[in-house]
Amino acid sequence: MGEFELINHYFAAAPCAQGGEGVALGIGDDCALLQVPPGEHLAVSTDTLVAGVHFPHDADPYLLGQRALAVSASDLAAMGATPLAFTLALTLADVGAAWLKAFAEGLQCMAGQCRLSLVGGDTTRGPLSLTLTVFGRVPHGQALRRSGAQPGDLLCVGGNLGNAAGALPLVLGSQTAAQHISAPLLAHYWSPPPQLALGQTLRGRASAALDISDGLLADCGHIAKASAVALQIDRQRVPVSPALHALLGEQGALQAALSGGDDYVLAFTVPPAELAGLTRAVAGVHVIGRVLPGQGVSVVDDQGRDVTPALRGYQHFHAVP
Amino acid sequence: MGEFELINHYFAAAPCAQGGEGVALGIGDDCALLQVPPGEHLAVSTDTLVAGVHFPHDADPYLLGQRALAVSASDLAAMGATPLAFTLALTLADVGAAWLKAFAEGLQCMAGQCRLSLVGGDTTRGPLSLTLTVFGRVPHGQALRRSGAQPGDLLCVGGNLGNAAGALPLVLGSQTAAQHISAPLLAHYWSPPPQLALGQTLRGRASAALDISDGLLADCGHIAKASAVALQIDRQRVPVSPALHALLGEQGALQAALSGGDDYVLAFTVPPAELAGLTRAVAGVHVIGRVLPGQGVSVVDDQGRDVTPALRGYQHFHAVP
Repeated sequence: MGEFELINHYFAAAPCAQGGEGVALGIGDDCALLQVPPGEHLAVSTDTLVAGVHFPHDADPYLLGQRALAVSASDLAAMGATPLAFTLALTLADVGAAWLKAFAEGLQCMAGQCRLSLVGGDTTRGPLSLTLTVFGRVPHGQALRRSGAQPGDLLCVGGNLGNAAGALPLVLGSQTAAQHISAPLLAHYWSPPPQLALGQTLRGRASAALDISDGLLADCGHIAKASAVALQIDRQRVPVSPALHALLGEQGALQAALSGGDDYVLAFTVPPAELAGLTRAVAGVHVIGRVLPGQGVSVVDDQGRDVTPALRGYQHFHAVP
Repeated sequence: MGEFELINHYFAAAPCAQGGEGVALGIGDDCALLQVPPGEHLAVSTDTLVAGVHFPHDADPYLLGQRALAVSASDLAAMGATPLAFTLALTLADVGAAWLKAFAEGLQCMAGQCRLSLVGGDTTRGPLSLTLTVFGRVPHGQALRRSGAQPGDLLCVGGNLGNAAGALPLVLGSQTAAQHISAPLLAHYWSPPPQLALGQTLRGRASAALDISDGLLADCGHIAKASAVALQIDRQRVPVSPALHALLGEQGALQAALSGGDDYVLAFTVPPAELAGLTRAVAGVHVIGRVLPGQGVSVVDDQGRDVTPALRGYQHFHAVP
């Protein structure tokens, strides 16, 4: 078996490559064919992860496979889409059977969790990088956009923030921590659960939504700009995990939650009348602020004082040294 | 403007990023949304091009943009799909405004020719590579597959073969040629016209089809295997361009046509009864052989003698040294 046949062997043999709902034709021809039900749109998103930029060169391949697909699937969650399929473009300098097997297993694990079928891709020789394109379906007019937030809406997030930013020094080996602290943070970094059920529950309820990849402040800025509103965040309501608090202290954890990236938790706005129904339907929703007339994003303390400047300027966590 | 905002500026401002038929939501949110008409499937294909492997590091960016999209769109042609949209994942070591502007213009030129809308993507820092994912639509049951060739069918191609293989030494600068020879070969290498009209015309007519990317012999092998038949090619009917013949001579041109890659010309099989209607509907179709019971691919001379072994072993043109 040639080395690139070896790659195809590992991926084409994975259970997620055996087709599924919405897959009319999978791997093996010039194109895959997807079935989109009448009355629905196909949602598409593409993400690239480059070794040495988005993950360390020596990253565990199982964890890398899991994380790469989770990051992409999070964009489907942010649109309220139901997952359908994905393609994988994998560029590799060397082809090691053990690396490939573990990577394919990690990918398979997340594909199974998300109900995503692998329908195609490309394998090429070159510096290690991955580009995943994910596909979902969403009923006409129900996709969650960034542009619908209205003054009076509540600003919410789908879970604790800052875990991935807190984990990064542990991933890079520049910091160590006790097991009860490092384990939950590393788990979130390597396998951020895409909030697909939350996204689907937000259809018809949320006025705007996205997934937090650049940090809460930056991503709220995207909603504020697209919706032409201001977002105000209550400092004391920003949810952080006990592990992050233990690692970084109160102020450090808050800064990681506001400015650290890679959370892949949904941020969204809802009219107040929708909140009760939403919290009955799905767990883990935190109200962290409100939509106001105006523009930009601010953070206020429990006295309503603007504390934004003191909280900016946290190290950005996208670039792996 | 930050450098990655600069990238977004060039691509989001391109005419092909302004939406089009079938694009419900383009660039700017977590996902794009595509509209697939009832009764049609969405066709999807992903290709990666890596600098130093698939094109020289110093490739002209306009030509690179053109070629990258042409290569991907050829997969839509091979399925008989009508082009809809594409995403671009671009990884760059340095961001030069002149490079980006020229690349975006080349991409735009091919997008306009193919009627493909840019609906999203990702821009990351790292060693230069491109991953394009293209989308088309095709009526249920009419996609051109590799698996339907039947003994008695004719084997055809959509145009001259071997031009890209002949061009490669010129691209790499390891050979020169007179302008009347180099110009048409380089034009085909950098801008292979995706045979989209031919692919759509083959719907309901061809029994099997693909686009030639690995060389005629290798790609006919894919049809033979998927269809469980043998394909026999008549040596004297393999079409080559005058420029290729002038550059390589008769035997060299034939070897380039049989084993050189990157042609992006369609190869397909049709029942004999379909040929007259097909050649009335579209120009440039060449019958080059036939489908037989059995397996594998062979080349025969005008006496019917098997001349395959003498024609194998041509240098493979995929890897740029």
